[in-house]
Amino acid sequence: MDLAGTIRDVADFPVEGILFKDITTLLKDPQALQETVDRMAAYAGSRDVELVVGVESRGFIFGMPLAYKLGCGFVPVRKPGKLPAEKISESYTLEYGINTLEIHVDAVSEGLRVLVVDDLLATGGTALATCKLIERLGGQVAGAAFAIELGFLNGRDQLNNYDVFSLITFD
Amino acid sequence: MDLAGTIRDVADFPVEGILFKDITTLLKDPQALQETVDRMAAYAGSRDVELVVGVESRGFIFGMPLAYKLGCGFVPVRKPGKLPAEKISESYTLEYGINTLEIHVDAVSEGLRVLVVDDLLATGGTALATCKLIERLGGQVAGAAFAIELGFLNGRDQLNNYDVFSLITFD
Repeated sequence: MDLAGTIRDVADFPVEGILFKDITTLLKDPQALQETVDRMAAYAGSRDVELVVGVESRGFIFGMPLAYKLGCGFVPVRKPGKLPAEKISESYTLEYGINTLEIHVDAVSEGLRVLVVDDLLATGGTALATCKLIERLGGQVAGAAFAIELGFLNGRDQLNNYDVFSLITFD
Repeated sequence: MDLAGTIRDVADFPVEGILFKDITTLLKDPQALQETVDRMAAYAGSRDVELVVGVESRGFIFGMPLAYKLGCGFVPVRKPGKLPAEKISESYTLEYGINTLEIHVDAVSEGLRVLVVDDLLATGGTALATCKLIERLGGQVAGAAFAIELGFLNGRDQLNNYDVFSLITFD
């Protein structure tokens, strides 16, 4: 089906001049939801994934059904202060300011093949920080999967050490 | 399996005196993740659910695999400022302060049987606000499903107009 056609463009969100790709219209369409998860899972299967890591909070949306379908565990990577137990963090710069992500230290077993999942690949900063967190815990990044890629932001360049999959690319 | 045994207690999180129920240890266990989703889905099936609504952000974690397994659409209810298109909001009081939740106005079709999903039933304020949002859009609340219920907080009392299911209860 035409998955791209199920995504809604919202002008000037979150700030003026940005054309926001709204996935809520894809998610509420049962057929689009099934196809999105099935195709991301097919990619994950081809990469022998053993654990799924989803980035807060829209990475949870696609990461959890993938983990369920693949029979893997799921690990959330979260914004500061949300994870309760012992954790490590990675910071990365954005156009305006710095973001920080955290993961529990016991989240990834040594050598496990891990899939990074988020809804959107934009500049790649979030995904790269997530890959670093996984590697610091001894995991192998088996791949990174996104529902949407904004090709014009060249996020793949930041992730050139990794295998990257996206379902829908906007150029 | 002993699902309750896969949940980690973390003392004094997020504030002193609170014993936090950490679901990340359940989620990273593939068997516990499968069983949790399967049992919540069995409940949803018994309620003829047509749409799943998950509350930001841990409601996304259980809501999406349920929607996938049931062949339904999924709708996120979010904190203020996160949803890009036209929306309505509900506020509710907490012990300290007020919380507000938002839903897109086109998220629920008239008459649809909707399942509310969150990780935890505590005082019930979040779930009740979510039920009200669904009903204001013309949806029917077919039930509310939680992975964990803190029985001693009596959240069910707030939801006595609705069918409530929880997988693991701590008294």
